[in-house]
Amino acid sequence: MSERAVSDDLMKTIVSLCKRRGFVFQSSDIYGGLKSAYDYGPLGIELKRNLMNEWWRAMVHSREDVVGLDASIVMHTKVWEASGHLAGFRDPLVDCQVCKERFRADKAPKLAAGEPAPMAFADKGRAKAALAALEQAGETGLTRSKKAIRGAVGSERGYVCPNCGSPFLSAERAFNLMFRSSIGPVDPMGDIAAFIEGGDLPAGTELRARLEELIRPSAVYLRPETAQAMFVQFLNIQQSMGLKVPFGIAQMGKSFRNEITVEHFTFRSCEFEQMEMEFFCEPGTDDTWLDYWKQARMEWWQKFANDPDKFRLRAHEPDELAHYAKGCYDIEYLYPWGWGELEGVANRTDYDLQKHAKYSGSKLEYFDPVERKRYTPFVIEPAAGATRGVLTYLVDAYFEEEVVTQKGTDVRTVLKLHPQLAPIKVAVMPLVKKNGMPEKAREVVESFFQRGINAKYDAQHAIGKRYRRHDEVGTPWCLTIDGQTMEDGTITLRDRDTMEQRRISIDNAVHEIEQLLRD
Amino acid sequence: MSERAVSDDLMKTIVSLCKRRGFVFQSSDIYGGLKSAYDYGPLGIELKRNLMNEWWRAMVHSREDVVGLDASIVMHTKVWEASGHLAGFRDPLVDCQVCKERFRADKAPKLAAGEPAPMAFADKGRAKAALAALEQAGETGLTRSKKAIRGAVGSERGYVCPNCGSPFLSAERAFNLMFRSSIGPVDPMGDIAAFIEGGDLPAGTELRARLEELIRPSAVYLRPETAQAMFVQFLNIQQSMGLKVPFGIAQMGKSFRNEITVEHFTFRSCEFEQMEMEFFCEPGTDDTWLDYWKQARMEWWQKFANDPDKFRLRAHEPDELAHYAKGCYDIEYLYPWGWGELEGVANRTDYDLQKHAKYSGSKLEYFDPVERKRYTPFVIEPAAGATRGVLTYLVDAYFEEEVVTQKGTDVRTVLKLHPQLAPIKVAVMPLVKKNGMPEKAREVVESFFQRGINAKYDAQHAIGKRYRRHDEVGTPWCLTIDGQTMEDGTITLRDRDTMEQRRISIDNAVHEIEQLLRD
Repeated sequence: MSERAVSDDLMKTIVSLCKRRGFVFQSSDIYGGLKSAYDYGPLGIELKRNLMNEWWRAMVHSREDVVGLDASIVMHTKVWEASGHLAGFRDPLVDCQVCKERFRADKAPKLAAGEPAPMAFADKGRAKAALAALEQAGETGLTRSKKAIRGAVGSERGYVCPNCGSPFLSAERAFNLMFRSSIGPVDPMGDIAAFIEGGDLPAGTELRARLEELIRPSAVYLRPETAQAMFVQFLNIQQSMGLKVPFGIAQMGKSFRNEITVEHFTFRSCEFEQMEMEFFCEPGTDDTWLDYWKQARMEWWQKFANDPDKFRLRAHEPDELAHYAKGCYDIEYLYPWGWGELEGVANRTDYDLQKHAKYSGSKLEYFDPVERKRYTPFVIEPAAGATRGVLTYLVDAYFEEEVVTQKGTDVRTVLKLHPQLAPIKVAVMPLVKKNGMPEKAREVVESFFQRGINAKYDAQHAIGKRYRRHDEVGTPWCLTIDGQTMEDGTITLRDRDTMEQRRISIDNAVHEIEQLLRD
Repeated sequence: MSERAVSDDLMKTIVSLCKRRGFVFQSSDIYGGLKSAYDYGPLGIELKRNLMNEWWRAMVHSREDVVGLDASIVMHTKVWEASGHLAGFRDPLVDCQVCKERFRADKAPKLAAGEPAPMAFADKGRAKAALAALEQAGETGLTRSKKAIRGAVGSERGYVCPNCGSPFLSAERAFNLMFRSSIGPVDPMGDIAAFIEGGDLPAGTELRARLEELIRPSAVYLRPETAQAMFVQFLNIQQSMGLKVPFGIAQMGKSFRNEITVEHFTFRSCEFEQMEMEFFCEPGTDDTWLDYWKQARMEWWQKFANDPDKFRLRAHEPDELAHYAKGCYDIEYLYPWGWGELEGVANRTDYDLQKHAKYSGSKLEYFDPVERKRYTPFVIEPAAGATRGVLTYLVDAYFEEEVVTQKGTDVRTVLKLHPQLAPIKVAVMPLVKKNGMPEKAREVVESFFQRGINAKYDAQHAIGKRYRRHDEVGTPWCLTIDGQTMEDGTITLRDRDTMEQRRISIDNAVHEIEQLLRD
């Protein structure tokens, strides 16, 4: 099998496991699903919560110099004017004039001008129709063979249609990635209707400008990133908390981008969750802090991984840097389809604070009480994807292992999730549903509940099947109540990864698991 | 002072404390704020997280019969057709023809037909202009005295303008509370422009219908409640988790309503956070479960309160019930402005599952493997406001107390937040910034960090001032390192509520606080 097929298979397997075992479902599944929107099921939400809680713990609760923020998703439209999102956060969109596919120019397959541009279609009929249309449009020198058309060459644009390979493309068209809505009691559609009824209507650009004017007063946007709120609330937070530079503001939450290309399951979707921190420091110390944070974040990701080597730090090339960034590293993971960004750690300089100061008229500066000087801090931003993190650790944790059983060899699926991330920490199982074992097991479960440890009582099917079921969802430990328990008060503790079992005292079960979770 | 003035003052005091101490800021503050949108600052986010984590712990992690869900905010539009939100979730809006105020008819001051309807304006000039306009419109029998106009009477509508008292009103107009956006690469405004350029334009209702048609294909809505996702994913969750009825699905998260009337700080805002659970049970057991949940939820709220008597359960009157509900209780809190809803516990019957089954064509039923019968479960829904919960406990916790000091009596402000809810659990303070005390204090802080307890190092200002500062943000305990610590290894533990101090061993500090947090 080709490598591509293997990785496609792995993703299919993981997507299927996610649905079957309650990690991730397609949103609005019974209605045919909503493109690129996902719901985290009972196990998925626990995994995501655990990951985000670990981030909060590392970034906020374990540090004196970082505090949290939870800002509203809908912010003042001026925020997006200042940040440049309203004007600049646009994808260049192109339509293929042959197959009508609409795609992002910057993501399309590259092809140098003058190079052969073979086109291929789903069937002979479509290829025939495409050739006829091209010839009618005045194109010459094209030939068809079955589903393929040859004879076209790449244009100066340097790319072709990702669907059929055609170099016959529309002009690039800017498209704003932000979701727009409107707030307040006036529906702008009512104003548009009144405008139409008023008659004397312009056309072309003037018409479009007039429509924009009608929408603008009530327009609001869903945030495309959580970061801007930290800049906008910089002064409120610094002053209310009496913070001294360097300090950071951290936020986790949902962001929204009307993505044209959605791909790889939850990797790129229109609604996603971020974990971002803006670290404000004195200009001149920014290089050191960029270095510090890229390292700290890399170590954090690797800490929970089975295969730390599948994470890498990649410095942005100068031509890759955003216009406001002085330096940037991507933390990438080797997904089944190749390296992909998991977190960006950027030196954003004082770009954002300066912009918001200019647009708002507020002085977004810091007064250093020791050095008695005033300045605009520089910002180092570690910006991670929370939903991408979940996908990353699902891929990292997925193993199929050959195991020897009494009946021969068998393959077990095991999610080797880090115990801190595992949705269920411990499964408690009565060997059989009688002789007081279920009652005993429920007592044990209750003692875990009381300590806030997510335990699960499980009495369905044979014990071996239960172990496999918990291997598949990443439960690190299983505790089994059997006949001996009723006699000597011991239970078996089974380890997910080694499958080894040992007997421990039932009274010590909670303490033992707490200890293992801490290690 | 009137009671109204006292409660206004209390709310002003709390709003001001929230901003000054980093609990809640106005969203986009430096841009003049966004109407009714709030950001939770460093202490506010901790309080909100603590509250929501406690809810999750009580509703999901401490029970065998409830699992979690985290669904996308943007769902398939059919979900809202089925739920009735798209058609029915509308406020009746009215414009005052005199002062131009736009308001909700169902919230306006009542006035019986024929009763005198005095009008009042901000100043004499406005009253004069209003009278002139009314007389020009043909109204007779009106007289003006200073800022007031008399002589008008209530209409059959039964209410008047909440701003000026006028009974001269526009027709009621339905207004959808859902935020609409559009998804996908096509901006519907482009289609509207093309439609206008196409010419031959209709008017009135037909025009509005045509505009709706142009928007509909790409329209999506922000969820106005989290509940619907639990119905839509009922089968996926029941099957993937092998759940047996009765069981519940819990979700926390943001919802959005384009509210006309926003009021009382964070009490009613356009973006808010919910904690909802749908409990699926066999028809016939629903009354018992409604009883169980209304009691369980009431106890949960009271558990964290200083004054449990300010919470009450109120049964809905038959004419107050939603059309789908068989019974409903509100858990209300006595806010400074009166009783207000904090949570609703409703028996939604099988209404939602039946609706989604009908609209989606999926069989949303449960097969009971023991009784070997198939049925549509009934649903009991405890639906709580998380952001309202935060406001509730801030109000409940706010105290001003007279205390006797060496200099006489003084007033201290103290937030008596439940220790589980308090943003900072423990403040660690060196008495002075020398003699090794700061280093010792940082060691103690570090040991709390390692146990995931949110501790804060605080060395700014005199010790008495530091205690007051932590009283004001609800920190239940302060640990002080002083001269004696350096000699005998003991530190003082100060209690927020009693202000009593006792010496404990420094080595025992973490254990002591963990123990106090557990009690």
